[in-house]
Amino acid sequence: MQAHTVKPLEPLKPGKPPNDAPADEPLYRQLAAQYRRAIRHGVLRPGERMPSMRAFMQRHGVSLATATESYRVLEREALIEAHPRSGYFVRALKSAALPAASEPDLASLPGAAQFVGIHSTISAIVSQLQRYPEAFNLGGATASSDLYPTDALQKAALRALRRRPTLLTAAGAEQGDPALRGIIARRALDAGIQIGADDIIMTHGGIEAVNLALRAVTQPGDTVAVESPCFFGLLQALESLGLRALEIPASPSTGLAIEALDFALHTHPDIKAVVVVPNLQNPLGCVMPDSHKARLVELCARAGIALIEDDPYRELVDSAKPLRSLKAWDTDGTVIHCTSFNKTLAPGMRVGWIHGGRWHPRIGMLKFAQSRHNEQLSQVVLAEFLETNAYERHLRRLRERLRLQRERMAAALAASFPEGTRFTPPAGGIFFWVELPRTVSSAAFFDAALKEGIRVMPGTVFSNAGRFDHFIRLSCPSTDLDLADEALRRLGRLATAMAARASARAA
Amino acid sequence: MQAHTVKPLEPLKPGKPPNDAPADEPLYRQLAAQYRRAIRHGVLRPGERMPSMRAFMQRHGVSLATATESYRVLEREALIEAHPRSGYFVRALKSAALPAASEPDLASLPGAAQFVGIHSTISAIVSQLQRYPEAFNLGGATASSDLYPTDALQKAALRALRRRPTLLTAAGAEQGDPALRGIIARRALDAGIQIGADDIIMTHGGIEAVNLALRAVTQPGDTVAVESPCFFGLLQALESLGLRALEIPASPSTGLAIEALDFALHTHPDIKAVVVVPNLQNPLGCVMPDSHKARLVELCARAGIALIEDDPYRELVDSAKPLRSLKAWDTDGTVIHCTSFNKTLAPGMRVGWIHGGRWHPRIGMLKFAQSRHNEQLSQVVLAEFLETNAYERHLRRLRERLRLQRERMAAALAASFPEGTRFTPPAGGIFFWVELPRTVSSAAFFDAALKEGIRVMPGTVFSNAGRFDHFIRLSCPSTDLDLADEALRRLGRLATAMAARASARAA
Repeated sequence: MQAHTVKPLEPLKPGKPPNDAPADEPLYRQLAAQYRRAIRHGVLRPGERMPSMRAFMQRHGVSLATATESYRVLEREALIEAHPRSGYFVRALKSAALPAASEPDLASLPGAAQFVGIHSTISAIVSQLQRYPEAFNLGGATASSDLYPTDALQKAALRALRRRPTLLTAAGAEQGDPALRGIIARRALDAGIQIGADDIIMTHGGIEAVNLALRAVTQPGDTVAVESPCFFGLLQALESLGLRALEIPASPSTGLAIEALDFALHTHPDIKAVVVVPNLQNPLGCVMPDSHKARLVELCARAGIALIEDDPYRELVDSAKPLRSLKAWDTDGTVIHCTSFNKTLAPGMRVGWIHGGRWHPRIGMLKFAQSRHNEQLSQVVLAEFLETNAYERHLRRLRERLRLQRERMAAALAASFPEGTRFTPPAGGIFFWVELPRTVSSAAFFDAALKEGIRVMPGTVFSNAGRFDHFIRLSCPSTDLDLADEALRRLGRLATAMAARASARAA
Repeated sequence: MQAHTVKPLEPLKPGKPPNDAPADEPLYRQLAAQYRRAIRHGVLRPGERMPSMRAFMQRHGVSLATATESYRVLEREALIEAHPRSGYFVRALKSAALPAASEPDLASLPGAAQFVGIHSTISAIVSQLQRYPEAFNLGGATASSDLYPTDALQKAALRALRRRPTLLTAAGAEQGDPALRGIIARRALDAGIQIGADDIIMTHGGIEAVNLALRAVTQPGDTVAVESPCFFGLLQALESLGLRALEIPASPSTGLAIEALDFALHTHPDIKAVVVVPNLQNPLGCVMPDSHKARLVELCARAGIALIEDDPYRELVDSAKPLRSLKAWDTDGTVIHCTSFNKTLAPGMRVGWIHGGRWHPRIGMLKFAQSRHNEQLSQVVLAEFLETNAYERHLRRLRERLRLQRERMAAALAASFPEGTRFTPPAGGIFFWVELPRTVSSAAFFDAALKEGIRVMPGTVFSNAGRFDHFIRLSCPSTDLDLADEALRRLGRLATAMAARASARAA
């Protein structure tokens, strides 16, 4: 396969802020006005770090009191915000808003699809991507690697190896490291889940957990209800297990349409399980309201089918208090809870876990027969990380940085994309589910974007039924937000041109 | 569950060698005679290290030439042997031999069994074992942990983490670390396998590889031919995948009976795959001769079915030149090759790999859908270990130590077990497949041994058809060979008593 080189993205670097404030105002107000203009004119961009207090005092020859006052003015105007131990950052401007994404048509329930070759569709896209290794990645599923605590994890691993030299040689415990499982059980209380260490089986990432859950409750040929749009990895897993996927519409703001599921349970008595991402659905980025969560659990319990909860993004939600998992409403073992630390802590550590509800013993058997215990090292590192405040500190910082990235991306999207583009800002995390004008095919857009040097995920892979052919999923990219702006500008020009060509053809 | 305490094993410690050699012989012969007697009388036991040259010279006040000559005499008599960089070790005496294990009855082919609850049988045994946590372990599947290169692996991991700080945070490559796969491909030439790095997918241990192979070539309800006796983990995997196991007799000296398989392929047209451990079969410990390997591959190719080769023990065989894998005879992609480094290098590193023959792309899809890529760290450690001579050095030492352990165990077995016990010494590795007198039930023996404080694996778990109810699998245990001797003495007394009771009842 030939690797294609692409035009590199070259953003303009912002210069120094202009210096033309009225002279009769107090100095701190003059300086605040200067920075306000810099932010409004885009010289300082959302997500950028403001000068440190020390740098500000030196640059403008002012006292600490003046510097502090200037920043307070900007902070009150919601132009900048303080991050503990990191300094001040520019926020996004309020004007950046697109119309909200359309709500789904609940009347249109496609038939349950068994083998539709979703894996070959995805493989074709992946092999396309591999031809452009240099392309700027707006199509990934994890945050930028510099947002994960590389140093702290490296140090924890070095300590663990020194303290326990046999970590690599001695076989680990069958369900996973007992100390780690104890810590996870305590932490699960935050999500409203009351379980003990023995109720937890460590898995190779969240995807192994979901596979084990599916294998425990289905036979090949069975039907599984999924959200639509649906994370393509789940569609692949269903296909690889010989299961049928029944796509239930999901709202961009509240997730799975409970009434549509209720209807489907009556019309499709062969449904054996429902798989839901309740917190920051992939790709929608929405959070299911508590009342929906309660109804969903009750519905599945009444129908006597398994509710498989895939919950790896919960801790990325911007929320004053922790969100609850579906499992919190479970009273009879209906909910199988699957999650991982891949998205929140470290994509390189394949550490997930599962609590199997009333299928827990069978899942334990399947895990043992399929891949035995997990490696010990990453479990020990994780246990250490979770036991101190390091994980919470990291999560707070990660959420703050991702929010700034999202605000900046939303502004760029609104500024560059053509009329007809719709988008509901996500409740946290990294995914942007963007509805392009109906005339723009996401497959063609994917190809054209790649030739421009930018990776996106086309909507075609989020459904077996071709429902999202004019959607794309973008993800918060590199922490170089100028590059991201430039990429979104190019994508916007592309979408505008494609929409214009389509309407010229129609005219 | 209540933990039971057991009588600790307390072996006699050997004293100093006696000093009563005839005075008219050359000094080196006198000293050799003295050590010969010590070895023959069991004062120095097989597997024990001889005094170093320096210690020998000091103890007996002799020159280096005399010391060297004494050891040469003992070496020529096959009483001791030199290990490079480790010194001299006592070998097992020739007299230690039991009658060879019976050859299987090829006429008796049981029906293919689907769900027979082998997993619950094994679970019952495991929960029994957990009640005796202090028991001496002759039932395990890996060598003693002090035979694995803990220090070197720890150092390699520390180096890897320092050199590549993002090993834990950045996601790994999809099929596994490319550098490691390149090294493995080169090393595979030793086994007669010609593949490239892209033909290799890293897996979570060998068991994930075998599961993927089975999933790639079967549907639930299909029949898979296996060796009988068969590693119980494979029977569990088959049961968990809803497959039927057809047990083909295997010879204790040459493994799978090819003619019986040939017959079965005609009578069972629903056989979709054959799973074979060609080198050091578990539990038989035998190696399939090259001519059988060639016929087996040809037979499967002709029948158009997959031959799944599980080959984790190949490098533990005592052999002047490397043994070949079944894959070496494959010309059309019939053989799926599965292996791991768990048994040879480090039970704590879950690193295996698979080459899927003509099913390779499908296996790649299944692996991605099931558990994504492996963690990077252990792969990078392994790559470093394989690239230097460290792995080969470790293997040589491991094979030598295991051989001494086996010789010593075989001697203890022959000395302690009752008439009617049969046993074919394995060609390497750690497993002893022991046929007890027909009247001794291995389930009862397992219980009684556990109460004596010793773990063994009963023959009942190596067949779905109850074929091996008077067999046990023992494995080379701790490197404290005196403790092992004492454990085998106790087991021998137990077997003798059980056999005696049975014949008293019969009389």
